[in-house]
Amino acid sequence: MTRLIAIDWGTSSLRGALLHPSGQVIEERSDARGILTVPEGGFPAVFESLFGDWMRLEDTRCLISGMAGSKQGWVEAPYCACPAGRVEVGRSILAIDAIPGARIAIVPGLSDTHDGVPDVMRGEEVQIFGAMELTGLSDGVFVLPGTHNKWATVKKGRVASFRTCMTGEFYALLSRHSILARTLDADAPLDEAAFLEGVTRAENGHGLLHNAFGARTLALFGRMPKEELASYLSGLLIGEELRTQSLQAAGEVVLIGSPVLTQRYTLALRAAGVATRTLGTEATWAGLHALAGFLATDTSQP
Amino acid sequence: MTRLIAIDWGTSSLRGALLHPSGQVIEERSDARGILTVPEGGFPAVFESLFGDWMRLEDTRCLISGMAGSKQGWVEAPYCACPAGRVEVGRSILAIDAIPGARIAIVPGLSDTHDGVPDVMRGEEVQIFGAMELTGLSDGVFVLPGTHNKWATVKKGRVASFRTCMTGEFYALLSRHSILARTLDADAPLDEAAFLEGVTRAENGHGLLHNAFGARTLALFGRMPKEELASYLSGLLIGEELRTQSLQAAGEVVLIGSPVLTQRYTLALRAAGVATRTLGTEATWAGLHALAGFLATDTSQP
Repeated sequence: MTRLIAIDWGTSSLRGALLHPSGQVIEERSDARGILTVPEGGFPAVFESLFGDWMRLEDTRCLISGMAGSKQGWVEAPYCACPAGRVEVGRSILAIDAIPGARIAIVPGLSDTHDGVPDVMRGEEVQIFGAMELTGLSDGVFVLPGTHNKWATVKKGRVASFRTCMTGEFYALLSRHSILARTLDADAPLDEAAFLEGVTRAENGHGLLHNAFGARTLALFGRMPKEELASYLSGLLIGEELRTQSLQAAGEVVLIGSPVLTQRYTLALRAAGVATRTLGTEATWAGLHALAGFLATDTSQP
Repeated sequence: MTRLIAIDWGTSSLRGALLHPSGQVIEERSDARGILTVPEGGFPAVFESLFGDWMRLEDTRCLISGMAGSKQGWVEAPYCACPAGRVEVGRSILAIDAIPGARIAIVPGLSDTHDGVPDVMRGEEVQIFGAMELTGLSDGVFVLPGTHNKWATVKKGRVASFRTCMTGEFYALLSRHSILARTLDADAPLDEAAFLEGVTRAENGHGLLHNAFGARTLALFGRMPKEELASYLSGLLIGEELRTQSLQAAGEVVLIGSPVLTQRYTLALRAAGVATRTLGTEATWAGLHALAGFLATDTSQP
């Protein structure tokens, strides 16, 4: 049995864990050297500086998910088309031979298509597989809030389809770079009442393009304090996101992400009568551990 | 009869016209010194440098609309609440006495409220009054595309209600500052087919937060050329805006704005089976000219 160095290498940051053969986390690390900070050809050196000590432990191998497998990443691992489960993804894991003797491989992302428009994820598929392991669920709706949120429908252990919502990026743009930024405090802590007011407002049928302006005028007329406006805007956006999902079909939603985000989705989904359960980084490690079984045949060749 | 110096002083730019007593434009000027560029207390000096020569002509007076009447402007002119027509707005015109002997006044904006959330416009009300003069319409839907678009319902010559959509600002944020900016050319000329594809896509029920991501993935998969993506995104946004309006009630829509924008709304509305007629800056001059009749009693006092 070998130890696994599990890495989720994203656009703006990365996280790694050294896993015991059983899947238990021995040690965790995180770093700001997301793929956009790595110069061309610089991945082996960055990897060595971050995880070289772990790689020199006896009998270890490494599996990397996330944007490291994108065109701008270390090695491009072409997307697996949905429906895809652990088997399809596991079979497409790509060995990296940039570091001689090191057993490093990259997990491909998933693609889907809706009426001719593609959709993509990289890294979230691993979290979904991990969440299936941890919850025992092989059917359901899995939601991964972030900059680009993923809503995935899982059927019989495979991701049947998914959609991306740019909710996190819209929040950053509006709260920091739009006219709304002048009158709201993007870093204010969550105000649950203002957040839920935004969630409810999002259902009024007038659309985000109109409702967002309310976060400006409520401030102009002194009708909502500065500290609450960011929560209200966040509620408008997440409410808009929920508005376009088939929630009645969901029953229960599995949320995977940071507590700051999953807390908000839990509140909004609960208000819509949808139960949730929540997972964090443990889903990534469980997913990479589950996929490591596919490594033997793919990367242990001389 | 006196000549009118008609000015629309906005956030990032301003336009002025010297009008013959009949309303005919004698000369037009525009400048980049929007209110955000004017230092505190600096309005009289900027005004003098831009329009001092016109003010020294015999028997002239000046009427200013737009953000110059906002809290960040020259003098704050409190909003008139809807429903409001030329009479209500005309009676609330505010004289400026910062420049001795000069007959300068500011037109207030309009406010409306929807379920406790205020909405505001400054300057567009003048364009609507002007459009009513120029078209002879005293009922209808008037749409003013811009950074913050206004959709106004006019009944019996008064603005009964209106809503703002941040469509222009969303386009700027997404095309220049979001992940979409990496793969689209925000300055590409309009591609009508790609634009209308976006308009149609906006009606698919999946929402802007999802559909916008398609402008990224279509590029990633090489399914839409870079030059068309900006038009597609513009169509997604304008389509989303139209989706939330009561277009079947409109019959005909009066568009007021720059040709670059009104052209797009004409295309999108025509695709939705709505007829349009279009006006440009002449609506501003006609509106200020129509309101000038209220000046005599308000600002000619010693």
